[in-house]
Amino acid sequence: MKIHGDSNSGNCLKVKWVCDKLAISYDWIEIDILKGESRTGEFLRLNSAGQVPTVVFDDGRTLAQSNAIIKYLARDSELVPRDALVAAQMDAWLFWEQNSHEPFVAVCRFHTVYLGKPVSEVDPNLIKRGHAALGHMDRHLAGNRFMLGDTFSLADVALLAYTRVAPEGGLELSPYASLRRWIGESESELGLRRNAS
Amino acid sequence: MKIHGDSNSGNCLKVKWVCDKLAISYDWIEIDILKGESRTGEFLRLNSAGQVPTVVFDDGRTLAQSNAIIKYLARDSELVPRDALVAAQMDAWLFWEQNSHEPFVAVCRFHTVYLGKPVSEVDPNLIKRGHAALGHMDRHLAGNRFMLGDTFSLADVALLAYTRVAPEGGLELSPYASLRRWIGESESELGLRRNAS
Repeated sequence: MKIHGDSNSGNCLKVKWVCDKLAISYDWIEIDILKGESRTGEFLRLNSAGQVPTVVFDDGRTLAQSNAIIKYLARDSELVPRDALVAAQMDAWLFWEQNSHEPFVAVCRFHTVYLGKPVSEVDPNLIKRGHAALGHMDRHLAGNRFMLGDTFSLADVALLAYTRVAPEGGLELSPYASLRRWIGESESELGLRRNAS
Repeated sequence: MKIHGDSNSGNCLKVKWVCDKLAISYDWIEIDILKGESRTGEFLRLNSAGQVPTVVFDDGRTLAQSNAIIKYLARDSELVPRDALVAAQMDAWLFWEQNSHEPFVAVCRFHTVYLGKPVSEVDPNLIKRGHAALGHMDRHLAGNRFMLGDTFSLADVALLAYTRVAPEGGLELSPYASLRRWIGESESELGLRRNAS
């Protein structure tokens, strides 16, 4: 399996983390989106939307969209709840991540990390909506160890990707004690830090 | 099962259509989001994000996010492919709908239908990105009867919701012959029109 991804992109890192966690082997093909490498003819034949991550399986079939990829790769693993309704509640967080979190939390960081803007020049409306998303998670995590309760799942993987680097886009995490606690525990689950608090 | 929804909202109609198609019985609770009915204390106890649609099952458990709801309701039906990778490709369209289509195609219409703006005052950047999404679908549908090929699936349900009413938000469909053909066939699959071409 080949993962075409940008290692600065949280959406792409989700796929790497799930593979590493589940010991799924892969080749990583680095795609620099700012250099137009996701818009070449060769890449558009893999994904006509020109988006990373895109996975190519050994039989040549392809799959796009980070959350669809991690759901497929982890479909029979401990990262997906067995109960159908709890699994659907996990899906709900994955869709919420894509429509109410990533468009603000990731996009703030895109302006600073990719486009090189100072934090002070990030659109205040994006900052405001990013904080709304982070605040919603923080309130949820005040009563839950992980997004689905006691068990670490793909909902945590998906939401961790851009939440842990939100300060790079001007979204400080200091107001969110539960969120910071959850980031440490989720990073530990994924082996991203050796000495989680 | 109770569906809390706004019958003007494509996201809410997706749930109704799947129930009607699969003969799943439900009570529809109309929620007027402009009157703040998705922000009352009572509603926020069902969905702390204050979003419709939200479904309440007979055992009291709840589920949010239109695409998570339709995936759950249709999980053992002909609307979801049996092959795991094809089902994952369906998921990819559902996530694409939420991050690359709905934020532009539905939001243009929100400004006109909900907020009462004339089409001429809709943000040109939203119009441009809406057309990019519609064009991407049209090119895909030039070679495919439905989004996944020959078989009608949840990918069609989800994408139909706002595509069929895109002109209400200023996104004319006249350039997109394949898309218009697909809208007719998908509406017929859902029984939304009696005399599809």
